[in-house]
Amino acid sequence: MSAPIIAIDAMGGDFGPHCIVPASLDCLAESPSLHLALVGQSSVLEELVSRHKGVDRSRLLIVHAEEIIGMDEKPAQALRGKPQSSMRLALELVREGRAHACVSAGNTGALMALARLVLKTLPGVDRPAMMTAIPTREGTCLLLDLGANVDCSAEQLYQFGVMGSVAAQSLGIASPRVALLNVGTEDIKGNQQVKGASLLLQRARDLNYQGFIEGDGLFRGDADVAVCDGFVGNILLKSSEGLVQMVAWRAEALFRRSLMSRIVGALALPLLRQLRADLRPAQYNGASFLGLQGIVVKSHGAAGREGFRAAVRRATEDVRHNLPQRLHSRLEDLLVSQRSDNSGDDVTATGGSPSN
Amino acid sequence: MSAPIIAIDAMGGDFGPHCIVPASLDCLAESPSLHLALVGQSSVLEELVSRHKGVDRSRLLIVHAEEIIGMDEKPAQALRGKPQSSMRLALELVREGRAHACVSAGNTGALMALARLVLKTLPGVDRPAMMTAIPTREGTCLLLDLGANVDCSAEQLYQFGVMGSVAAQSLGIASPRVALLNVGTEDIKGNQQVKGASLLLQRARDLNYQGFIEGDGLFRGDADVAVCDGFVGNILLKSSEGLVQMVAWRAEALFRRSLMSRIVGALALPLLRQLRADLRPAQYNGASFLGLQGIVVKSHGAAGREGFRAAVRRATEDVRHNLPQRLHSRLEDLLVSQRSDNSGDDVTATGGSPSN
Repeated sequence: MSAPIIAIDAMGGDFGPHCIVPASLDCLAESPSLHLALVGQSSVLEELVSRHKGVDRSRLLIVHAEEIIGMDEKPAQALRGKPQSSMRLALELVREGRAHACVSAGNTGALMALARLVLKTLPGVDRPAMMTAIPTREGTCLLLDLGANVDCSAEQLYQFGVMGSVAAQSLGIASPRVALLNVGTEDIKGNQQVKGASLLLQRARDLNYQGFIEGDGLFRGDADVAVCDGFVGNILLKSSEGLVQMVAWRAEALFRRSLMSRIVGALALPLLRQLRADLRPAQYNGASFLGLQGIVVKSHGAAGREGFRAAVRRATEDVRHNLPQRLHSRLEDLLVSQRSDNSGDDVTATGGSPSN
Repeated sequence: MSAPIIAIDAMGGDFGPHCIVPASLDCLAESPSLHLALVGQSSVLEELVSRHKGVDRSRLLIVHAEEIIGMDEKPAQALRGKPQSSMRLALELVREGRAHACVSAGNTGALMALARLVLKTLPGVDRPAMMTAIPTREGTCLLLDLGANVDCSAEQLYQFGVMGSVAAQSLGIASPRVALLNVGTEDIKGNQQVKGASLLLQRARDLNYQGFIEGDGLFRGDADVAVCDGFVGNILLKSSEGLVQMVAWRAEALFRRSLMSRIVGALALPLLRQLRADLRPAQYNGASFLGLQGIVVKSHGAAGREGFRAAVRRATEDVRHNLPQRLHSRLEDLLVSQRSDNSGDDVTATGGSPSN
């Protein structure tokens, strides 16, 4: 593989370039083969880069973008009104083959809409999904969708299952256990969408479909890939983050209560730190958009320096595994060949995938 | 208030009467004014009760029921095929005014269907909701619906918000903060149902509606009442249980890793036990069905003795607060008066509410 080139929307996220530039330079320093293209207001970016010493400028490109998409802007507005946004130009670098992947901490809805417009979906895919790895007892589980699609049809959930399986295989799991999140494990449980998706997944060739899984099974590690619509996935992910923080908060309060508990707390601190590090949201930051003709990774808007670094690392991994190409082959086999209806209107054009 | 009488479906749950009878007798012993009616196969129940010494039989009635509803049985089957089930007879005791509340650990779908049939919904309520208290940083939050309704209209979510607010007031919160769970806090976020429900809640009189809340705000304690459809609520609740268990599991693994960490672990044990007790699912067990003309509490099917006791305690609290009567008054004001359309077909008949 040639050296990975990642295009970074440097203007997105709650903290903007003041967080993204240092995080990007960290990545550049830790990966000697990595190339970055920072996209945004060049004067701001140049100034922020100049504050750091020892930056290898031969691996860093600054691409000027006139416009910024606001965190609360409507996707339609971002699509029509801002042809020169940092987010759009970063995606165009991927389409033009000048970068292998795009990372943004910006407006999720706008990123999804622009990514579909600029990169197009893979043949057979209606809507891309957002996917991330969540920690389980002894490993991780890939969860999708995380909020890109608040309403999903059975067919879409099925596509997510197929895409999640391919992604898990690229991580080295030979036969990933795919499951649908539901309110019970019996066939009669759930809404029409999950019941329909379950029938489709049962029929899919070479897919290790396990049936329904409940919320507790997810963290027990009963599946390698868990599929749900974006509404459920988003609330599940954010409430899990909130719950871990709440538990940590309660634990700290207990460890502060008396002198004895303070001593015990101090002794237990390294272990608790380790636990927290194992579970910290930043470590699991970076959601891959699956189903596009290119690699896009969404960083949490509130991600700090460490979190953004994790998102860049995830993009580099997706490049290394050549995820869109793998998805393309598998989807062609599973989705396109099984379809008799029209295959959508925005899947025909092909973007210039970087050759690697 | 007269002494509370709780009808218990003694045959439901994963462990059946062997767990429910001892748990019920524990409750009888700890609450000297409590009366219980155990409903189920009388020979089995008599035998189980006879194993315990010192049972105050003057406060314990055994009601024979010929049939049992299986955990996987379809609700329709339970409705039509089993007129003598323990679940149904327990609900009928409430309708007849012979008990103030019913507790069951049985099949949730069947319990909801039978409760609607036997007790009827309150005027203005389309579908009852399941509600429970979940722990937050410094208190609790009432979450509904938990799985009784996998698909909810905007109007139903609105009704849940109103009912949750009344329930929170009965717990002593003067002006409960009501919020809708969503994938973002901006107005443009979410599906049509939550957007519609938000408009209805904004217009409701005397309701402290806070707008949308995300998953992390839930556990931070940003709301006293959080509303979502049953699909989301069920997955949220079960995944939270799974996550807490996963964290505990990882913590134990860390504390076992070396001699030093084992010593620290032993010292920290009382504090960790306290934390676990504060967060343990059994303590929060027991979901109230809101919107019925009678009190019904659903215990987790997998609840053990401690969990089932918590469900009986919740029912006793609901009786003490006279929850259906409070809901009736408030709903009349908020829902019925604001409605111009037909008010449903199953809300006219009235069950004999116990007078207390």
